[in-house]
Amino acid sequence: MTDKTSFAAPGSAKDVEEGAAFTPKFDSAGLVTAVVTDSKSGDVLMVAHMNAEALRKTIDTGEAHYFSRSRNKLWRKGESSGHTQRVVEMRVDCDQDAIWIKVEQHGEGACHTGRRSCFYRAVPLGKAGAVTLEFRDGEKTFDPDKAYRNT
Amino acid sequence: MTDKTSFAAPGSAKDVEEGAAFTPKFDSAGLVTAVVTDSKSGDVLMVAHMNAEALRKTIDTGEAHYFSRSRNKLWRKGESSGHTQRVVEMRVDCDQDAIWIKVEQHGEGACHTGRRSCFYRAVPLGKAGAVTLEFRDGEKTFDPDKAYRNT
Repeated sequence: MTDKTSFAAPGSAKDVEEGAAFTPKFDSAGLVTAVVTDSKSGDVLMVAHMNAEALRKTIDTGEAHYFSRSRNKLWRKGESSGHTQRVVEMRVDCDQDAIWIKVEQHGEGACHTGRRSCFYRAVPLGKAGAVTLEFRDGEKTFDPDKAYRNT
Repeated sequence: MTDKTSFAAPGSAKDVEEGAAFTPKFDSAGLVTAVVTDSKSGDVLMVAHMNAEALRKTIDTGEAHYFSRSRNKLWRKGESSGHTQRVVEMRVDCDQDAIWIKVEQHGEGACHTGRRSCFYRAVPLGKAGAVTLEFRDGEKTFDPDKAYRNT
């Protein structure tokens, strides 16, 4: 198993922000945030987390790996559904605690609910009080019960 | 101050994923993750966090508000630099613990280092061992020492 020592420890703020050393800053749970966008549409497909092992495997293989907080385990995207993600580009943010990957989404979608993106509902702005979500691009592109039937 | 009770508490998984009630799932620190993209270019500008108050103010005003974990306070984006963000659209993800906002970025950039986006370095893929970052779109668009001189 790959631990945090697979990556160099962060140096000074200047080194982290302006340097060329990749020194990811894992949180107290050992995770960085991963934002995943579709390389074609630019849409945000999902937000997930990576531990050091998931990050290393993603870099080494070019296939998106995450750490599932609910299942407490490493997870290769698509290992159950076949809906894998080929990483086209990976970027890191200024303080190196967030990763942005642009991916080619294989199969019908990224969301476990059966949709292309996890962000299929809009939050209307400028309204006080209770907020009612509006479905957008909310059509299911696959049947999650079939896609995940072997898990 | 707005607390979590400003929003309804999450119901069943089915309600959270398939319903129209906005019931954000704040983490143990009272935060949701906010992914911010440029409404024109589609680029990810930054990743930040919102507490209930920041989320409510963003919804009410259409101006991006965040919660600064380092300063432990609510933060209206651009309050120091003038680089405000007008929210064009807000979306929430399947399990309602992440927000995606598309914004019109005013001023020269979103990143406190003086760049348009916080994601100005690429992580090369397929290389074992130490990783050397590659600057992309890394030119500074403003002088952070001037923009933040009053803070």
